[in-house]
Amino acid sequence: MPTQYKAFTDPIHGFIHVPKGVTLRLLDHPYVQRLRRIRQLGMAFTVFPGAEHSRFSHALGALGLMIRILNNLREKNTTITNDEYESMLAAILLHDIGHGPFSHTLEHTLIKDFHHEMMTLALMNDLNQQMDGALNTAISIFTDQHPKPFLHQLISSQLDVDRMDYLKRDSFYTGVLEGSIGIDRIIKTLRVHNDNIVIEKKGIYAIENYIMARRLMYMQVYLHKTVLSADMLISSIFERARDLVQQGEQLFFPSPALQYFIEVQPSAKKKISKEVLKYYTMLDDNDVQLSIKYWMKSKDPILSDLCNRFVNRRFLRTTFFDSSTDIESVKTDLAKKTAQSLKKSRMPFDDKSVSYYLKFLKTESEAYRFRQDSIWILESNNTAVEFSKAADAKHIMALSQPIIKHYAVHLKDID
Amino acid sequence: MPTQYKAFTDPIHGFIHVPKGVTLRLLDHPYVQRLRRIRQLGMAFTVFPGAEHSRFSHALGALGLMIRILNNLREKNTTITNDEYESMLAAILLHDIGHGPFSHTLEHTLIKDFHHEMMTLALMNDLNQQMDGALNTAISIFTDQHPKPFLHQLISSQLDVDRMDYLKRDSFYTGVLEGSIGIDRIIKTLRVHNDNIVIEKKGIYAIENYIMARRLMYMQVYLHKTVLSADMLISSIFERARDLVQQGEQLFFPSPALQYFIEVQPSAKKKISKEVLKYYTMLDDNDVQLSIKYWMKSKDPILSDLCNRFVNRRFLRTTFFDSSTDIESVKTDLAKKTAQSLKKSRMPFDDKSVSYYLKFLKTESEAYRFRQDSIWILESNNTAVEFSKAADAKHIMALSQPIIKHYAVHLKDID
Amino acid sequence: MPTQYKAFTDPIHGFIHVPKGVTLRLLDHPYVQRLRRIRQLGMAFTVFPGAEHSRFSHALGALGLMIRILNNLREKNTTITNDEYESMLAAILLHDIGHGPFSHTLEHTLIKDFHHEMMTLALMNDLNQQMDGALNTAISIFTDQHPKPFLHQLISSQLDVDRMDYLKRDSFYTGVLEGSIGIDRIIKTLRVHNDNIVIEKKGIYAIENYIMARRLMYMQVYLHKTVLSADMLISSIFERARDLVQQGEQLFFPSPALQYFIEVQPSAKKKISKEVLKYYTMLDDNDVQLSIKYWMKSKDPILSDLCNRFVNRRFLRTTFFDSSTDIESVKTDLAKKTAQSLKKSRMPFDDKSVSYYLKFLKTESEAYRFRQDSIWILESNNTAVEFSKAADAKHIMALSQPIIKHYAVHLKDID
Amino acid sequence: MPTQYKAFTDPIHGFIHVPKGVTLRLLDHPYVQRLRRIRQLGMAFTVFPGAEHSRFSHALGALGLMIRILNNLREKNTTITNDEYESMLAAILLHDIGHGPFSHTLEHTLIKDFHHEMMTLALMNDLNQQMDGALNTAISIFTDQHPKPFLHQLISSQLDVDRMDYLKRDSFYTGVLEGSIGIDRIIKTLRVHNDNIVIEKKGIYAIENYIMARRLMYMQVYLHKTVLSADMLISSIFERARDLVQQGEQLFFPSPALQYFIEVQPSAKKKISKEVLKYYTMLDDNDVQLSIKYWMKSKDPILSDLCNRFVNRRFLRTTFFDSSTDIESVKTDLAKKTAQSLKKSRMPFDDKSVSYYLKFLKTESEAYRFRQDSIWILESNNTAVEFSKAADAKHIMALSQPIIKHYAVHLKDID
Repeated sequence: MPTQYKAFTDPIHGFIHVPKGVTLRLLDHPYVQRLRRIRQLGMAFTVFPGAEHSRFSHALGALGLMIRILNNLREKNTTITNDEYESMLAAILLHDIGHGPFSHTLEHTLIKDFHHEMMTLALMNDLNQQMDGALNTAISIFTDQHPKPFLHQLISSQLDVDRMDYLKRDSFYTGVLEGSIGIDRIIKTLRVHNDNIVIEKKGIYAIENYIMARRLMYMQVYLHKTVLSADMLISSIFERARDLVQQGEQLFFPSPALQYFIEVQPSAKKKISKEVLKYYTMLDDNDVQLSIKYWMKSKDPILSDLCNRFVNRRFLRTTFFDSSTDIESVKTDLAKKTAQSLKKSRMPFDDKSVSYYLKFLKTESEAYRFRQDSIWILESNNTAVEFSKAADAKHIMALSQPIIKHYAVHLKDID
Repeated sequence: MPTQYKAFTDPIHGFIHVPKGVTLRLLDHPYVQRLRRIRQLGMAFTVFPGAEHSRFSHALGALGLMIRILNNLREKNTTITNDEYESMLAAILLHDIGHGPFSHTLEHTLIKDFHHEMMTLALMNDLNQQMDGALNTAISIFTDQHPKPFLHQLISSQLDVDRMDYLKRDSFYTGVLEGSIGIDRIIKTLRVHNDNIVIEKKGIYAIENYIMARRLMYMQVYLHKTVLSADMLISSIFERARDLVQQGEQLFFPSPALQYFIEVQPSAKKKISKEVLKYYTMLDDNDVQLSIKYWMKSKDPILSDLCNRFVNRRFLRTTFFDSSTDIESVKTDLAKKTAQSLKKSRMPFDDKSVSYYLKFLKTESEAYRFRQDSIWILESNNTAVEFSKAADAKHIMALSQPIIKHYAVHLKDID
Repeated sequence: MPTQYKAFTDPIHGFIHVPKGVTLRLLDHPYVQRLRRIRQLGMAFTVFPGAEHSRFSHALGALGLMIRILNNLREKNTTITNDEYESMLAAILLHDIGHGPFSHTLEHTLIKDFHHEMMTLALMNDLNQQMDGALNTAISIFTDQHPKPFLHQLISSQLDVDRMDYLKRDSFYTGVLEGSIGIDRIIKTLRVHNDNIVIEKKGIYAIENYIMARRLMYMQVYLHKTVLSADMLISSIFERARDLVQQGEQLFFPSPALQYFIEVQPSAKKKISKEVLKYYTMLDDNDVQLSIKYWMKSKDPILSDLCNRFVNRRFLRTTFFDSSTDIESVKTDLAKKTAQSLKKSRMPFDDKSVSYYLKFLKTESEAYRFRQDSIWILESNNTAVEFSKAADAKHIMALSQPIIKHYAVHLKDID
Repeated sequence: MPTQYKAFTDPIHGFIHVPKGVTLRLLDHPYVQRLRRIRQLGMAFTVFPGAEHSRFSHALGALGLMIRILNNLREKNTTITNDEYESMLAAILLHDIGHGPFSHTLEHTLIKDFHHEMMTLALMNDLNQQMDGALNTAISIFTDQHPKPFLHQLISSQLDVDRMDYLKRDSFYTGVLEGSIGIDRIIKTLRVHNDNIVIEKKGIYAIENYIMARRLMYMQVYLHKTVLSADMLISSIFERARDLVQQGEQLFFPSPALQYFIEVQPSAKKKISKEVLKYYTMLDDNDVQLSIKYWMKSKDPILSDLCNRFVNRRFLRTTFFDSSTDIESVKTDLAKKTAQSLKKSRMPFDDKSVSYYLKFLKTESEAYRFRQDSIWILESNNTAVEFSKAADAKHIMALSQPIIKHYAVHLKDID
């Protein structure tokens, strides 16, 4: 063991032994190290000051968890070849590699028609080329083309290693205990049945708890009002920066990578170009934070105000609507009030200006989807049954309906 | 502080400062100290070896929690007089004082028409006499006759200090993480509104988690198959002992307190007599465990066999029935098989004998009752709304239906 | 895995997978199950109410830890045969099997010239007979006659699995955080070098912490004044009971097993007899607690008073002496005062009577012994160096001197 | 409470209630918010991936702890006026405000003759002006001019709130359990005696553990070889950048704040100027990280190489010397080898170039100083005794000698 592994201390999983060879080379690659400079929870640290952990710590933690699970499955006599084993480690380590700074918030602002999973795959392919095909199996597992579906399910499904690690980790760092899950019990009862991941009957309550914990993390952390409002502000800042550049203005001190995205505005409709890859992998939270810090001094009153609000956390307000709200009339009303408020502050108050200070958005989440990527329970008669049918689960059925919340982010004084 | 408190170290709540005076005198009273000799979770330690904690540690923990909550409410400007404060400490400390050894299981075997809450009240009244009326207010709060209903609600309701402590404690000692609850968040958002306990809107997910955690503890611990089967065995042992005594047999080495209950078979229909009180407070787990240990050597083959099974954990099997089962025909079938099995083991196999080895029982539990003792949420407009109506709570509604599970405990070889 | 193991949930180590076969048979044997009825920390629960765990939970936990360590050593290419592996599990499971109720306190009172380790070996031999020699290797490891010394060291040395589990466990249940140790780091750096257990250099601080944690547990828990005083009381109770029996008095309701030891007073000078084994394995905390409870009603004023003090925790006082104290003159003084105090309470106050209420005792402990059973550190040049020489360890050397504390336990009112 | 506090969730201390008014205004001030962008442990996250927490989370945590301690002292009847109370919160919140990015490492590189505590005081004075003297008492406590010495001791001494929080926090985030301390027990036994902080006798082992935990954190985390080597690298980078600028070179994309310090090279010998304050408070980890990231592309081979090593964690090696080493001859030897190695890599290899790749440094630490800022124990006779004299503390005396470690950081291939 001493020479074939490099050990990391993780506050959640304890020691993580990263095998030397492909896995450690990937871990040390700049593409993965870049995740050290991207926070896992974006702006959530403004509400939960302890939650300053990076996507790297999550990737490493998920790797540690994957090692435990694969070893455990092998002990239960599931065949996993050495190539598959190493590929699973690669796939989980790289599963979030395409994330940009401040995550989902900026994705569309930086690149048109873009989703971070496209970038993950592009970067995996790029790494595969650099490593002479060492990631062939990893990519085929990641894209669900490998003949053993259970491997893909561990990477991406409703009960995947990604979720297990991030729930435990985000709960640990935020201090929101309601998100804590019983990973040991899940691992203990996790098995492969007909090439699919199943949970033994006696693990059914650990799964119920896992589903509920995820729901509670969404409600309390991921969709926290202040987090939504901070996300909106960062969007507005980059919209404004882009608009200014399009009007021919010069930004003060944009980082080289950011400047590329703001000026070129690449699109992901076609294949992601080498150039986009190059600038994307150069980009991290530091670029965004530093630019915003110096843009506080911009001559443009809107950009300067938005950045000042961001740095000094004078966020806008988030208001949720219930189903009875007539959103269209609210829109008209709030737009008018926003314009008045901006005018009163001697700010520009035309429609364009208002659009940076008032946005109507929605969140959509469901605790459990029983139609897709379902979780399967292995009954004592050795047949697998979809989770919500396996037990007294009326409440789980109730949770499988998506919860859509419409909300506005707006100036506080117009409330 | 140094002289007015006695400090205890609790692994869950940290230091607990018990005020000298009435509270410490009660804590040191033999009636409360007796709870040190009664396990909180009865037979659950056979499945969860770490769960060997006593009712005393729960009573002390609940006291510690109550101190925090009362101090917190006072900081939020809720008026609680010194008499009420001290009475609340007394009431929570004594709330389980009427429990007998191995709890619910033996209650009816020891005393006819009995429920432990009757004994709690009888002992509180007895203590009140001993202490010249010092418990007047405590008793009036305990019996919900005190003019401030929120005080009684903290002692006994769906969101009481009893439950908060036992969930946290039982989860800690069993190692069943799914039962862990976020007590800090509950306390932080707990308030008094119109003399009733309410939870501020922002605590709603801590409550949802609390309800789910309780459900999961029932499913995984309190109603665990082996626990149900061990409970059944202990019932059978004392039924057999009583039957033998009624037939004029002499038991080997019953403890004096046990002997009283087996021979006299007092009833609780009328007022609980001084004599019953005396013997009841002498009785604890030690009496039961020691008797069973020595009864292994009884000449009666049934008593000896049942006790041997108990000590060496050769329990019977628990089988749950689903709604489609025709229980009556199962009864007939299993009774026949039980008799055959006993006969094969050269044991008596008449109907009476079979009755010790085969019982049909049921459990009933619901995660949340919205009609009674409800939990109330304080909305931002300062009105209190019943929990299941306060939020996206279809799943909570689904959980408010009682779950009734019918089951049999029977010999393993007849399965 | 599903069929070859039985899993237990431990709040400290998580799931413990006990292999079926010899290990599970031993676990289920009445000799081991008896440990469920003996508290790990004797009377410490009177000071630390959470510390009600049994010797069984420690034995099971040590087993779980041993499994981890052996698997880990095998991964590091240490050869451990299947017979050795199974024997190590047996040896650690049985290592405390000879403990009697309330442990060391009662040992000498029950059996003359006795030490619990003699009984452990006697019971292991007895089990070995019952199991047709299945424990041959286990016994040879336990008695350090097996050719691979590292195996014995894991069972019994200054860095054995026994200590690792009990420190972690006792810290967990008492809530005394200072006793918590970093087991993961110890296991990670533990290796076999020239057939001896060594710790890799990078684990040196985990070992320092382990030594300090043990010291702090001794100072804060194991040698706590109240614990020492409760231990003294229980000794006095059984001395008095024995003295009464020797005077021809009849005890009220002694349990059959206790009665044997009080009346027969067997000695361990010669081989432990079958009869002693039979009664010893029948004896547990329940016998002691129940007897004391009913002896409160003894006609003998001393026995009754001592038992009342025990049950209602009116313990005597422990006073430590420093090196300058003239203990002989203190003895004379306190004996006189004790007699006076007893007289005032209308109790017998002759020398014999005084001896139950006044005892002069000492404790001896050292944090680390560097001359014997030392802990060895593996330096980077692959040589093993004794721990206190391996690092900046002047403080560790200072801790290797035994700390002897003389103390008296005496009535409170004579202080 | 609802309106006078703002609550934060901390994963270590739970909810922290920050009083509105001066305390919250300070917390929201850009000077304090800037600490969110400076990591608490500098480069330690490269070894302990979980340790990504900021100085802000420590400042907030220390504030939470201070609130608990002050409330606790008031309960123990220590007089603390409202002005003192509020000033203590201000002082602890601001105690680290003068830290620059990557802490001590860069201090001297950025400003000559500088120590971060000078900046802390300068910023406190600046804030005091902004707030019309609201910090007068806080500053007088911070500089130990306030008449009650115990207040200063809680801010800065060997047992201050700063250390308590950072030990607990750094242990939590690194996962190094050996650094965990029992804060509850320390707080419980902490008192004011003759206007000085003392610990009651029964807390003596909690203090011993606290001292040992700090020592173990130094040995395992703060002075970890890789951390020392990363610190050295960052120093070299900024030395090189400064040297290049002095030679008239233009740096690619230095952040405005960094550029100021590199070009102007202010000194702290005289009073810190307004201009220095302005640029210093603009500077954080982002400036440093982003500059290093883009300097990887510098035309200067040394700057580019050093930055590449930093970002991709190809650190140099740390070698500790023992007392027998002839450091002077090692210096000559390693300098020669470094030059050869650089030459082989086609890098400049003159003395100046070598100086970026080879540094001789030392660390100095002692676990406890008994001559200065000592910790005092309150004996039962109500006199305070210096900690190392209060108990069996030969090992603590041994730990009070400073441990000086000389080491070199150098290229790996010359080892």
